Amino acid sequence: LSRRGERPSIETLARLPVAVDAMGGDKAPGDIVEGARRVATDDGIPVVLVGPPDLVGDTLGLDLVACTEVIAMDEDPAGGVRRKKDSSLVRAAELVRDGQASAMVSAGNTGATMASALLRMGRLPGVVRPCIATPLPRLGRTPAVLVDAGANAECTPAMLVQFAQMGAAYATARFGTGSPSVGLLSIGEEATKGTPLVKETHKLLAAEAGAGAGAGFEFVGNLEGRDLLPSPADVIVTDGFTGNVALKALEGSLRFLFDAMLGVFGTNAETKAAADVLLPYLLPMAAEFEPENTGGAMLLGIDGVCVISHGSSNATAMVNAVKVAYECATRGLVEHVAAAVRPPAPESAPVPA
Amino acid sequence: LSRRGERPSIETLARLPVAVDAMGGDKAPGDIVEGARRVATDDGIPVVLVGPPDLVGDTLGLDLVACTEVIAMDEDPAGGVRRKKDSSLVRAAELVRDGQASAMVSAGNTGATMASALLRMGRLPGVVRPCIATPLPRLGRTPAVLVDAGANAECTPAMLVQFAQMGAAYATARFGTGSPSVGLLSIGEEATKGTPLVKETHKLLAAEAGAGAGAGFEFVGNLEGRDLLPSPADVIVTDGFTGNVALKALEGSLRFLFDAMLGVFGTNAETKAAADVLLPYLLPMAAEFEPENTGGAMLLGIDGVCVISHGSSNATAMVNAVKVAYECATRGLVEHVAAAVRPPAPESAPVPA
Repeated sequence: LSRRGERPSIETLARLPVAVDAMGGDKAPGDIVEGARRVATDDGIPVVLVGPPDLVGDTLGLDLVACTEVIAMDEDPAGGVRRKKDSSLVRAAELVRDGQASAMVSAGNTGATMASALLRMGRLPGVVRPCIATPLPRLGRTPAVLVDAGANAECTPAMLVQFAQMGAAYATARFGTGSPSVGLLSIGEEATKGTPLVKETHKLLAAEAGAGAGAGFEFVGNLEGRDLLPSPADVIVTDGFTGNVALKALEGSLRFLFDAMLGVFGTNAETKAAADVLLPYLLPMAAEFEPENTGGAMLLGIDGVCVISHGSSNATAMVNAVKVAYECATRGLVEHVAAAVRPPAPESAPVPA
Repeated sequence: LSRRGERPSIETLARLPVAVDAMGGDKAPGDIVEGARRVATDDGIPVVLVGPPDLVGDTLGLDLVACTEVIAMDEDPAGGVRRKKDSSLVRAAELVRDGQASAMVSAGNTGATMASALLRMGRLPGVVRPCIATPLPRLGRTPAVLVDAGANAECTPAMLVQFAQMGAAYATARFGTGSPSVGLLSIGEEATKGTPLVKETHKLLAAEAGAGAGAGFEFVGNLEGRDLLPSPADVIVTDGFTGNVALKALEGSLRFLFDAMLGVFGTNAETKAAADVLLPYLLPMAAEFEPENTGGAMLLGIDGVCVISHGSSNATAMVNAVKVAYECATRGLVEHVAAAVRPPAPESAPVPA
């Protein structure tokens, strides 16, 4: 079922619409459709909605590719994709595969989004496993990229090396970073620290980057959890279990602290007045941490562009997710990643089932 | 070399001094000795310093157990402990083993502190591996306890079950929590989410807690990274790799945000005046996040009390670390943990070498 034939040219991709899963996310379809309309109107990005017409309702003038099914947020991903062949997620992925959309965006069931994209678009040649890349804010600089942010709970060293290759290609395509620096998440700076997975990956990344020409990135060694905000490396590589825990720990702690701060601000009339003075300065900073402004996570290693937006995405989050999808598609993200990925050496450990 | 004979009674422990590694930490010996003096003077807690007299210098009137060596912050832990038998760390651990100190405290080389305590005091019967318990703040409530915060990069399900048992005993001994709630750190709420390690541990913890009487804790299922601050469970169980990454991610993000906030406060005269109004309300909150106020991490599963303080510990951090060490020793932490730990079932997977 995966892609047949050539990938569309950049010129073609720029004309193709971004396929938006109108039924994905806690605020679907209302905020999703509104965000899609806004990015189409305000930014001139071509968009097509995908969903069952009776559930989507008013499309606000946008085109709709009609389908009959929806995979629920809490539905089993693999089963959902297998059974619901006419779901908004599966159909959105098919539009990309068939050259009718430049990219797909969904704020729906993350596992089902990955499965739809993987099964319909297919893996890029040589990719062992696709991974999720999530931006981490670095106040005033381009964000760092965390890979894998949750696609693969179990990983091999060969997979992590590919995550580094793909993450670096993404940093280049999205942020224009030349020869991105790559760090490996561990529990100490020394190459001897961490799990066997981390230690072996450290060796492979050092060898690959040390080989010089063609690595596409610079390896800066191990990073620790405290280095995630702000990251000294452009790309942070880890397995999807650790990456997901770390990412959610960051999100949770920032939200906790912002909430606690807002509580303090509301203590009395005096603190409220003081907060009014500070808020214009604090809000732009807070905005950099807002998931709705980061444009969502990118699935890397598949033959197409797929943006996975937060389940809680509002219209603004959708605007940014569609922008990122369109920019990455028209900057040739897939070609960048395809060129960056090298098949693992044959002596590498087998991938767990 | 491990303990011979009976443990001292609570009455005896209350009279024994806490052994403080005078040479451990970035600010040793100055801040370490000052903190020890302060807690002895202000809180009446008996303290003894351990270190080479010429390096320690002025003991501010405290007793000093003289030794000749120091294990450096960046020295190989196992090698350091093996070679430097007359180091402050090894001698401090021996004082506890020999019933001459109620507990030991060090802000020095974490690995060497663990190795000294483990080799000199010995493991409690049935304990597969000791673990590190670190408090996580929950504004206005007793902190939650994260186990393992970094002692064991590689773990088996049987080890994680023991971490739950020991972490619950610690929450009870230190914070008075009756039947603590235990959560398992994973990447989704469902029992089917996570690595094989997490999935198997989930089963074992559910079976143990479900067996009713004697578990000593209530199992509340999986938690995610976003649940770490504030944790809905009294104890959060994870492997030492994930725990260390998550803990440092939290520390780093909070420091990042506090620093960014302070930067905003200093923007101009108006923001400085507003900050002056808010700081008296913000500082108590910030204090709850300060590692210097949490009393450091506790090594659990050994036959003695050993507090591992942050390498950056100042005098205040040492005051709190000594307090926690003394309180835990005199509340019978070791007996609590010894009673809580059950040997793993014989069919459990073997411990990695």
